[in-house]
Amino acid sequence: MTTSSEVILGIDPGTRITGFGIIQLLSVPRVIDYGCIRPPANLPLEKKYLIIFNDIENLIKKYRPSAVAVETQYVKKNVQSAIKLGMARGAVVLAAAKNDIPVYEYAPTQAKLSVVGKGQASKHQVMQMVAMILQLSSPPKPEDAADALAIALCHSHHSKKRMLKGSY
Amino acid sequence: MTTSSEVILGIDPGTRITGFGIIQLLSVPRVIDYGCIRPPANLPLEKKYLIIFNDIENLIKKYRPSAVAVETQYVKKNVQSAIKLGMARGAVVLAAAKNDIPVYEYAPTQAKLSVVGKGQASKHQVMQMVAMILQLSSPPKPEDAADALAIALCHSHHSKKRMLKGSY
Repeated sequence: MTTSSEVILGIDPGTRITGFGIIQLLSVPRVIDYGCIRPPANLPLEKKYLIIFNDIENLIKKYRPSAVAVETQYVKKNVQSAIKLGMARGAVVLAAAKNDIPVYEYAPTQAKLSVVGKGQASKHQVMQMVAMILQLSSPPKPEDAADALAIALCHSHHSKKRMLKGSY
Repeated sequence: MTTSSEVILGIDPGTRITGFGIIQLLSVPRVIDYGCIRPPANLPLEKKYLIIFNDIENLIKKYRPSAVAVETQYVKKNVQSAIKLGMARGAVVLAAAKNDIPVYEYAPTQAKLSVVGKGQASKHQVMQMVAMILQLSSPPKPEDAADALAIALCHSHHSKKRMLKGSY
């Protein structure tokens, strides 16, 4: 349930760059932290996932979110890319499950609809609106961190709707 | 390096069924354990991956393998299936990386070539040859466990070849 002190960890997972954004739902949502996890390119794949897992677990322990909201990206590329993306997403949801934090998944179109009001909004529009909603002086960068904040905002939006509908 | 007491954990990952097989390389390879991890179907996805992760970690702690060999399956289905498969594989390689065990990946054709001598061998032929090589009275079941044992045998084969070539 959304409470006045709810903390949400939004994540845009990827093997090369995993964006994260943490917001707190007070009378208006405010940013607590955001950034990116970038495992060194020369590491074996499994070590990269371990870095993502450990970093997400550290964020969970530091900020104690009540929900982890994960972006379910578009995969236009080949099946091998989809498997690698799945491995990165697996590391993220595992860190949440291991710490008993519920996981919610949202498609990029849902996040854009929540933040901009248009499912087909541009990256630039998302960054601008995230900055406006969270009262940041400039759009959060890089893009992956802005996407993660958008996913966290999307969860707060859906969470409120569910509460109003009495679904939990 | 393959030593007389090397233990290999072979894994055929999947969200519904993850097969595992543990072999020890003595003068001939022998089976230590094999079976399947089947997370309950009604669990949220992240809880399924946590079960796979925890069970693989328990096998690693129990048998102390020197290598984890993972099957890189065919994905003929859609991108969503590939992402789910990637998440299961992510849970497996993460358990290995967290316990500092090196991960090796082999395609099904490599395993079939190692065990049967034909990259296009049938499932039945793989099960029969795994039983023969490991001196089992009957083919290991289910299929996922037999595949995991085949992957472990494939790794021992490749490991010996690498040693003979002096690549490590």
